Amino acid sequence: MMIQINTELSETDTPEKRLEKLGLTLPPVPSAVGDYEPWIKVGSIIYTSGQLPWIDGDLKFTGKMGSDLSTEEGYQAFHLSALNGIAQLKSAVGELSRIKRIVRVEGSANSAPDYTEQPAALNGASHLINDVFGTKGRHTRMIYSDPSMCLDCATLVVLWAEVED
Amino acid sequence: MMIQINTELSETDTPEKRLEKLGLTLPPVPSAVGDYEPWIKVGSIIYTSGQLPWIDGDLKFTGKMGSDLSTEEGYQAFHLSALNGIAQLKSAVGELSRIKRIVRVEGSANSAPDYTEQPAALNGASHLINDVFGTKGRHTRMIYSDPSMCLDCATLVVLWAEVED
Amino acid sequence: MMIQINTELSETDTPEKRLEKLGLTLPPVPSAVGDYEPWIKVGSIIYTSGQLPWIDGDLKFTGKMGSDLSTEEGYQAFHLSALNGIAQLKSAVGELSRIKRIVRVEGSANSAPDYTEQPAALNGASHLINDVFGTKGRHTRMIYSDPSMCLDCATLVVLWAEVED
Repeated sequence: MMIQINTELSETDTPEKRLEKLGLTLPPVPSAVGDYEPWIKVGSIIYTSGQLPWIDGDLKFTGKMGSDLSTEEGYQAFHLSALNGIAQLKSAVGELSRIKRIVRVEGSANSAPDYTEQPAALNGASHLINDVFGTKGRHTRMIYSDPSMCLDCATLVVLWAEVED
Repeated sequence: MMIQINTELSETDTPEKRLEKLGLTLPPVPSAVGDYEPWIKVGSIIYTSGQLPWIDGDLKFTGKMGSDLSTEEGYQAFHLSALNGIAQLKSAVGELSRIKRIVRVEGSANSAPDYTEQPAALNGASHLINDVFGTKGRHTRMIYSDPSMCLDCATLVVLWAEVED
Repeated sequence: MMIQINTELSETDTPEKRLEKLGLTLPPVPSAVGDYEPWIKVGSIIYTSGQLPWIDGDLKFTGKMGSDLSTEEGYQAFHLSALNGIAQLKSAVGELSRIKRIVRVEGSANSAPDYTEQPAALNGASHLINDVFGTKGRHTRMIYSDPSMCLDCATLVVLWAEVED
């Protein structure tokens, strides 16, 4: 399932350099879809709100895995939600190298009633985090399956990041 | 969708004063529906458990949004779940002005399989938090959709609050 | 619903001694089912990832509560998921007596669309935590219902534990 081997990535590269090597551009920081903040820093931890698979106001992945979407598409949707999460973190910290550790990835998968491949789909977020942050990206995660989701989005991702004091 | 403009609220009002101006009374602090605690303080953060839309032992909103309940009713259910959450916080801190920040609102919506308006419904919790705590109420949030919920309740809300040391 | 009265347990027993008195053995620490870590310590808190009801690589409980599984079986599945969580905590801290407090239990229940007994099922995790950690086990909790889950597992449990510095 799309395990990316990026031999050209180095632990000494900044996360921004890694994104560039991966051919990825951070999307514009999305606004919240309700009356809340996209991220908050408490102590040394930044918590984001749930991130949808947006690019420039366009919701790229809608529908349910297992009926409307394949696991491969779910993987791409989680990858894009996580990229939005990284964009939020960058707006919070300026330079992503200030992040000491990605603590937790929370992922919600819009799921048909008999869909069971959520972990392979959520690897779309995990692989991106690991690629961009290297050993600092090694995270815990919790996965949720939802019978329907806001705006019919395919995925939601929350990131928790520990930063330097 | 019921954006409340409360021009009479002032940043210098205490949360208790704001509740009074809003015409709201905190419900009696509900017990847990299982073998757990309604809230815990760790370091400077109070975490509540999931709060149902109770008043005095009466579960006011049951059923699923998108089939049994409208988004407007879901909004009211989230509002009431959050009011129960604020009651838990008050039992933890005494004076709500000791709260420096509402960090996170977690909301679960009992959802029909094709329901997609969860963010508008969860604003029922967000608007209340913002009204009662003002700028200290600006929070992140994560939304979950559930195919069925405990006691058939419509909503569950968890609050995280940072308090003065 | 299986409230365990363990009169022989004492607050002065170590968690390991309590497990022994309960006749329980911690399962081998399971690997992650995706590209992530089973636990992380940040400050004084250990967060696990979602724990499935495994014993030795065998997923003991699959299917949905309310159709495939009874609440009693859901209780046993949550109990086993939580036992895996305790095994993760032990691998993190060595001696479980280093844990000052179980802060939060997060439980996901694979649920049929009309199932409403999730709290009684999740007590399978709560009772175990309370039995093993005594007053230090008194936790908050959040419950999620999922329409389908990874590998068709019945339950997922995340534990947050505060440890001595």
